[in-house]
This record gives sequence, structure tokens and C-alpha cells, in this order.
Amino acid sequence: MESWSVRPIGYVRGPYLEPGDVPRGLGAKHEAEGFLDILPELEAGLKDIDGFSHLYVVWVFHKSEGFELVVTPPSDDRPHGVFGSRAPNRPNPIGLSVVELLGREGSRLRVKGLDMLDGTPILDIKPYLSSIPEERLKRGWLAEAEERGGTPHRR
Amino acid sequence: MESWSVRPIGYVRGPYLEPGDVPRGLGAKHEAEGFLDILPELEAGLKDIDGFSHLYVVWVFHKSEGFELVVTPPSDDRPHGVFGSRAPNRPNPIGLSVVELLGREGSRLRVKGLDMLDGTPILDIKPYLSSIPEERLKRGWLAEAEERGGTPHRR
Repeated sequence: MESWSVRPIGYVRGPYLEPGDVPRGLGAKHEAEGFLDILPELEAGLKDIDGFSHLYVVWVFHKSEGFELVVTPPSDDRPHGVFGSRAPNRPNPIGLSVVELLGREGSRLRVKGLDMLDGTPILDIKPYLSSIPEERLKRGWLAEAEERGGTPHRR
Repeated sequence: MESWSVRPIGYVRGPYLEPGDVPRGLGAKHEAEGFLDILPELEAGLKDIDGFSHLYVVWVFHKSEGFELVVTPPSDDRPHGVFGSRAPNRPNPIGLSVVELLGREGSRLRVKGLDMLDGTPILDIKPYLSSIPEERLKRGWLAEAEERGGTPHRR
């Protein structure tokens, strides 16, 4: 089968050192501030990025090994498919976050809203451009879990 | 340097056969309908995905070769950094789209809003959960290009 090799364009620097440090589950707030340290030789790729308020960060769950197709997320007590969850043990261990861009110094981006570990390898950064209007958004089992009064917890 | 190998979890089936077929640039609408055909052996990973209205699709720019750090996108006549653009020639050739989920039959998801080519390898699917409120979103050089009256064009 086809495969592609991907490599870090940089690394996350932030306050979460272990998986248990990252707030998870219903109502988890990701207010952590930190840095996206892009490799100096790729700095030209950041030209004009300062004008965007929010960025997509595509990254690697570098602590994950193997995958499970059905998972019970921290936000529910029922099992769901991995592709309807943000669980770390995915067929491709790729994570996606939206962060707020606070500033830039050279190849270092200061951001807010980190939910990945310190040392996480970054694969790509893209501008966050558009929102789905709230009234058109359905949040699946997560909304149902919230209605059942699930309590946020850490794992 | 570290690297990871990623493999398709499925393929896009849609109306765009060549890069020039995909609407690009300012004001481009992505209304195309088609399918995300997930590998049958991964179908269990789609459990309960039907409850979400919108999905993130992480995919491979499989027609891209090499990368450029500074690009002039179809939506502007000025150069910008690749990480502030959706240009295909990226250090890691990873694409990201938000699609609307219309329905599911087994391991086939019917979706709207495709902007990738027929045959595009899919790396991951995740639920689209939250929106940044419009009033907090800054769209950088794209907003400036729109104000200057840039005309959408194809390339």
C-alpha cells in the first residue's frame, strides 16, 4: 500500500509535560500559552502569518503506539468510533488543533490554546479561515453526552 | 531527523479529476458532493460518526512534488509564506478540509464541500466541533486581498 513519510517542521513548547497534564473531556478549556518553534531554515514560510488570528496546527501524537477503532473517550462512558473522536491512538497518529496566534519572533510563534504536549512534532501550519455557523453545527455523541450530564474528568 | 510513515485510511471520490478542476481563489465555493470511501477493515472506526454535521478530513496532496516556502496564491498577486496559505507544495504535503456529512452507507461517507481531487488519499477524519466567533477571526492577507478587489481566478 502507498505510504508517505512526514517530518517535523518544528516543535511545540508548552506547559504540558505528560499526557495526564492536558485537560480533557467535556468542558475542558485549552487556555495554555506556549510556542510553536519552527525550524529556522523554514522561517520564510511564515511570511505574513502575523495577520491571522487563529491557525490550524497539524501535529504527531508522538507518544501513541498502535490504534483502536472503537474508543471510550474521557467525555463519555460509551464507546465511539475513533474517527468521531480526538483519541490519540489513531490509524495515522495525526493531531489537529486550532490555536490563537499572539505574536511572532523570527521562527517562533507565540500561541494560546495549546492542547498538545511539550515536544510535540509539528507537521504543518495553515490559516484558520472560516467558521461553520453555530446553528448549522451538530456535535453528535458529544452533545448527547453533555445532555446526559457527563462530568469532565482527566485520564 | 525523526520521521513518520502515514498510510491511506481511504480515498476521496468526487468530480474533480485534475488540479485545474478545483475552484480556487477568493470567493471560490466548494459545493461539490462526493464520497469518502474508507477502507472496509476500518469501518468500526466510523461508529456514531453519523451524528456530526461537519468533519475534518486530513489528506495527502498526492500530486505535489517538492515545496516552496514563499508562494503567490491564486487569491492574491503578492507572495506569502506557505504556512499562511493552502498551497499544495508544502514541506509535508498534507491537506485539510471541512466537509458536511450528508450520510453514511457502511464504510462510505457521502459528503458535500469537497475541494480535493478524485483519488486523494485520506489520512484521518475527525469531528468538527467548534467555531471561532466571526468577530474574533482575522483573515490576514486574504482579507487585504479581498479589500483590494482581487478577482478570483483558476490556475
